[in-house]
Amino acid sequence: MSTHYQRTVRFAEVDGAGFVFFAKYLELCHEAYEASLLRSGIELRTFFGKNRILIPIMKVNAQYLGPLQSGDNVRIELAVTPAGDHGFAIAYRMLQLGAAGEKLVVLAKTEHMVIDIQTLERKPLPPALAAWVQAGGGVS
Amino acid sequence: MSTHYQRTVRFAEVDGAGFVFFAKYLELCHEAYEASLLRSGIELRTFFGKNRILIPIMKVNAQYLGPLQSGDNVRIELAVTPAGDHGFAIAYRMLQLGAAGEKLVVLAKTEHMVIDIQTLERKPLPPALAAWVQAGGGVS
Amino acid sequence: MSTHYQRTVRFAEVDGAGFVFFAKYLELCHEAYEASLLRSGIELRTFFGKNRILIPIMKVNAQYLGPLQSGDNVRIELAVTPAGDHGFAIAYRMLQLGAAGEKLVVLAKTEHMVIDIQTLERKPLPPALAAWVQAGGGVS
Amino acid sequence: MSTHYQRTVRFAEVDGAGFVFFAKYLELCHEAYEASLLRSGIELRTFFGKNRILIPIMKVNAQYLGPLQSGDNVRIELAVTPAGDHGFAIAYRMLQLGAAGEKLVVLAKTEHMVIDIQTLERKPLPPALAAWVQAGGGVS
Repeated sequence: MSTHYQRTVRFAEVDGAGFVFFAKYLELCHEAYEASLLRSGIELRTFFGKNRILIPIMKVNAQYLGPLQSGDNVRIELAVTPAGDHGFAIAYRMLQLGAAGEKLVVLAKTEHMVIDIQTLERKPLPPALAAWVQAGGGVS
Repeated sequence: MSTHYQRTVRFAEVDGAGFVFFAKYLELCHEAYEASLLRSGIELRTFFGKNRILIPIMKVNAQYLGPLQSGDNVRIELAVTPAGDHGFAIAYRMLQLGAAGEKLVVLAKTEHMVIDIQTLERKPLPPALAAWVQAGGGVS
Repeated sequence: MSTHYQRTVRFAEVDGAGFVFFAKYLELCHEAYEASLLRSGIELRTFFGKNRILIPIMKVNAQYLGPLQSGDNVRIELAVTPAGDHGFAIAYRMLQLGAAGEKLVVLAKTEHMVIDIQTLERKPLPPALAAWVQAGGGVS
Repeated sequence: MSTHYQRTVRFAEVDGAGFVFFAKYLELCHEAYEASLLRSGIELRTFFGKNRILIPIMKVNAQYLGPLQSGDNVRIELAVTPAGDHGFAIAYRMLQLGAAGEKLVVLAKTEHMVIDIQTLERKPLPPALAAWVQAGGGVS
């Protein structure tokens, strides 16, 4: 069971100060979320179409503990937890991987809600998604 | 008739070398294209839905003549020309605006084709779009 | 005194569900922050260089109340408040502007800290920035 | 020797029509270029600093042959060729990988020039970069 995602920060992902732009960290977190779903066979776009749902993010928060530059190697760890019958939350830990060891650079959390694609009303999680949440974001 | 678009380069738009990332210039060009259409009352998403079309970009080329940094003020000039019965081309000149005058930093060109949203076959330009092309991208 | 920023959501800013990507809202908030600073004569990159500082974002949180699509017209309202001697916070309200009136779509907050560009230790706000905070993000 | 790069199109990479935004394809190409350099031990930012150079892109062109959606799996093939004593060119083929086989979706080309970070004058390629070009973008 893997809930980790790893990659190198790219040249286009920094800001005028030379560090990763604050909103880009959250895009990286979403990327780790998508990768985790894919490992469970869930691709968001087709999953939305098949189940007639959307899963908007309702809330996000993040705490920045250290800077990242392009070329830095990062690992993102996810922990997925249920949130009521219609949603789930993801806690992210982003670690910079270096010769001298790992360094925590970002803590973040997103809250997700399943809604009907037509009525926009809350819906229960489809079974494959519920299983993914049950497995904490790993492959069950 | 205005085919100009002006704004300041933002903090998030640079790369690891501190200059605007090469693909971002093309996003800026598209932004100027959208602004030009909006001045003629055309908003791409609703226009696509109403006319059951898409207008994919078929080709792009760009030449980079000078660097831009965040905080730089740029003006983008558009020249729109017809391309057959189903398309149009846009030539862009991007100028850096400074105390010492203007400096040409990018020349680019995009080629656009109107296709049916269902069949993906070529379609003639809807009248409002044809009028915009006729006016060279300005308001006729 | 203006702390408002307004623009149209662009074609490139949506996600696979057709709505503005959650991290993109925060980029929009930063854009409004930069525009507010510019109106007070502060351009981040040159300001950082001149004052030998950086102003990293330490925390962010956002609450999503309604979806936005490309072509939507939004206004972002900023309220800037001091946070100790070395920082400030910005509260953002993002409103969708439509024929039927305004609709609140996002509430967000960012926390900023002034640090030395070399030592990365906390520094007091340079006078121009302190004046901008004092004016609540408007032009004093 | 590998000059291939593969990944899944992400949820944030599409535009208002639901397809990958035209400029994003070029970001993907640059990503493949960075991955290729990394396999040869070259990370752009540190390489620039160590060799006191920049390698701006002087020209780009691309031809779009088919649409991509989020969730699509793509492979990008690079072919690197020398261009005079101070530059190189990269040709990209982007293929959509599906159950029914591969489909060519983008052909692109970027032209790169090595310049001095201070004087901005042309410089010969540093040995490691020259070796990478010699190997066609693969690991020699």
